[in-house]
Amino acid sequence: MTRIYIKDLANHIGQEVTIKGWVDIRRDQGKLIFFDFRDVTGKVQGVILPNAKSAHEVGSKLRPEWVVEVKGKVNQRPEKNAQKEKQNGTIELEILEIVILSEAVETPFELGIDVNVDTHLDLLPFTLRSEKSKAIFKVQATIARAFREYFGGEGFTEFQAPKLIGDDAEGGANSFDVTYFKHIAHLAQSPQLYKQIMVGVFERVFAIGNVYRAEKHSTTRHLNEYTSMDMEMGFIDSFEEIMNIENGYLVYLSEILNKECSADFALLKASIPVVPAKIPRMSLRDAQVLITKETGKDCTKEPDLEPEHERWLCTYAQEKLGSDFIFITNFPTAKRPFYTFRNKQDPTYTDGFDLLFRGVEITTGAQRIHNYNDLVASMKEKKLDPEKFSYYLQAFKYGMPPHGGFGLGLERLTAKLLGIDNVKEATLFPRDINRIDNLLSK
Amino acid sequence: MTRIYIKDLANHIGQEVTIKGWVDIRRDQGKLIFFDFRDVTGKVQGVILPNAKSAHEVGSKLRPEWVVEVKGKVNQRPEKNAQKEKQNGTIELEILEIVILSEAVETPFELGIDVNVDTHLDLLPFTLRSEKSKAIFKVQATIARAFREYFGGEGFTEFQAPKLIGDDAEGGANSFDVTYFKHIAHLAQSPQLYKQIMVGVFERVFAIGNVYRAEKHSTTRHLNEYTSMDMEMGFIDSFEEIMNIENGYLVYLSEILNKECSADFALLKASIPVVPAKIPRMSLRDAQVLITKETGKDCTKEPDLEPEHERWLCTYAQEKLGSDFIFITNFPTAKRPFYTFRNKQDPTYTDGFDLLFRGVEITTGAQRIHNYNDLVASMKEKKLDPEKFSYYLQAFKYGMPPHGGFGLGLERLTAKLLGIDNVKEATLFPRDINRIDNLLSK
Repeated sequence: MTRIYIKDLANHIGQEVTIKGWVDIRRDQGKLIFFDFRDVTGKVQGVILPNAKSAHEVGSKLRPEWVVEVKGKVNQRPEKNAQKEKQNGTIELEILEIVILSEAVETPFELGIDVNVDTHLDLLPFTLRSEKSKAIFKVQATIARAFREYFGGEGFTEFQAPKLIGDDAEGGANSFDVTYFKHIAHLAQSPQLYKQIMVGVFERVFAIGNVYRAEKHSTTRHLNEYTSMDMEMGFIDSFEEIMNIENGYLVYLSEILNKECSADFALLKASIPVVPAKIPRMSLRDAQVLITKETGKDCTKEPDLEPEHERWLCTYAQEKLGSDFIFITNFPTAKRPFYTFRNKQDPTYTDGFDLLFRGVEITTGAQRIHNYNDLVASMKEKKLDPEKFSYYLQAFKYGMPPHGGFGLGLERLTAKLLGIDNVKEATLFPRDINRIDNLLSK
Repeated sequence: MTRIYIKDLANHIGQEVTIKGWVDIRRDQGKLIFFDFRDVTGKVQGVILPNAKSAHEVGSKLRPEWVVEVKGKVNQRPEKNAQKEKQNGTIELEILEIVILSEAVETPFELGIDVNVDTHLDLLPFTLRSEKSKAIFKVQATIARAFREYFGGEGFTEFQAPKLIGDDAEGGANSFDVTYFKHIAHLAQSPQLYKQIMVGVFERVFAIGNVYRAEKHSTTRHLNEYTSMDMEMGFIDSFEEIMNIENGYLVYLSEILNKECSADFALLKASIPVVPAKIPRMSLRDAQVLITKETGKDCTKEPDLEPEHERWLCTYAQEKLGSDFIFITNFPTAKRPFYTFRNKQDPTYTDGFDLLFRGVEITTGAQRIHNYNDLVASMKEKKLDPEKFSYYLQAFKYGMPPHGGFGLGLERLTAKLLGIDNVKEATLFPRDINRIDNLLSK
């Protein structure tokens, strides 16, 4: 018999149907056995009546997480038992026949109850099945899909950036070493150099993929492997265009989230942000003057924003400018990577930006240097050896248009959107200094 | 002035427009200077007439790969000069003004001419700009997009599989070692174990991402980092469903390629395959009996198909069954991974398949073992230590539905579709034992 998804059962009242899924909960009440069954689309209550002998025999063995195929009749619940606010709360499946597809051992605790992060991570193949985890990773998949749809629609071509990087351009304390035959290679910290090369090919490109940071800390913010959503576009007149297009993506994302994920946000008690058509923009210097004036603590000499300043600016943007987002622009050249384009009026500042959202930076973006000689000079100024970047520099030798782009960490954005404090809960299989799936032995 | 894309110029005959792009070719003819300009949408011929003094001054400096902004008037070419079969062959841009956005050094050879693979790879930031390379990677992006669209439409959820794998489950000669703080980790050879875990969460999942093989050979077939498109689905009745859904994807892919990439296939002198609504299926044993009968060489005792047999079967399928594709099913259990489901009638054979296309295997797929005890027994039979798979095995302890899936190598599929002999030409930034971008020092 064709499988009916649990979400569609209410369209089959009075009919015999087959569902497939997991036993979520079992409750015995005298001669009745009640179950909640779960499939990817939701849950439904089923009951075995005393006269259903063969179903009773199988049903009495079932425990949570057993996988079953259930034939039953969809009944309307009597008005007094109806729970209208709940999925399938007005119907019930009268169970006629159960086939066991897989047994399960006793679960360590009831699926979905709050456990500490380490227990959650130890048992991910089980704990990821909770409603909460499913909602988180459905939202995450939607964020990435919206990125592809939006930039695809804007004429961007997706490419797969390599993650295995030579010993020439990358390296440093933050990179993982890979034994590559007789050589040492590295895991990419970003697709930056490749997306710039690809601007020379397709003008507008994006890439979504894993990146690596050899962070030695295990905190609620650090991940050693995460997903970066990166775009880069050519023939821009100014870095304002990069902010404009990111703004456009965020507006699109919030539309899609409202359309497809409002139940997930409700479950997680989170709110989908309103994204203004024009997210406010403020230069770092103006921001520092403002913070100094309002808080009385002088930060105008600092080269960057402290976490407390990011939080302050987010509160300010929300209260005074009516926006959950704010772009902070023109960070000092000294604090930005070698490829960052310098402001023409004052080359000690860059034409780049951070995007702040709910207290933290979620994006770094900028126009990039496209002139070969300027790029080599900038490398030298930063004490980098242009020889080690010879592969990448070819793109600039052979003519690169003015271009820029940004990167957006998928897990951090997911966590911030959903109000999740520990980014590891918004990461499918998080790796940190102590853990790759299982805890690493000491 | 708003930039007009080169593909749209024919809609602006008689108007002054601005284009942006690269100088593709320059030809001086007496007092006239001709150019081909190139942007991501195509090429157009431009001409500087002798009276356009300032344009002449700038234009006389230009060489291939210089990046320019060109103001000009779109003119219809006289009938005798029209090249109707060519993009923009009936129009010409009368150049009024040129702004140089970037200079370029002299190119090592004319973009697009045939060079040997090593030269091509040495100069990728330049050579990827050729029409041929752009067509290859546009087709590749389209294959991946079609995969996402098709499986997304079939209720699959995309997830990001980790590439950094612990020392427990993976390992062996074919895996790269990563120095992970005080431990050794590995680069994933496939997302297999994770996509199975995710079936327990979302029932139907797919992942597109890099995978790694420490191949010690540099050949036209080997890659050390490639892109795997993987799907896995739960609640199947048989592995036939996996073949059905892969068949459905390939039908959809061929529709999309016909709609969006026919010019790219024409440029590469390749043909988009016709995908039958039902790709022929043949068991390995039947295939071996057939090969033995037709070729006179007995291969019925062999545990697998030799490359020559794969080629023979592809020719047979094309000539006798009218299909570029053929599924070969039920390989011996001894030759398949531990998680492969065994045929109920004869457990020495598996419920799995290979898909052959144009002479080679492009997919391996199967139903998987979903019963915990069967899975542990299969590991032991294969001399694997279940303890090392404890994380993965949790999914099976806590109830897994019958499930299966397949993996498809993006670069190999791209190469086979486009008739490219060396898979490295269908890989954006190929890594092999001798090369990560630049040749590795000896």
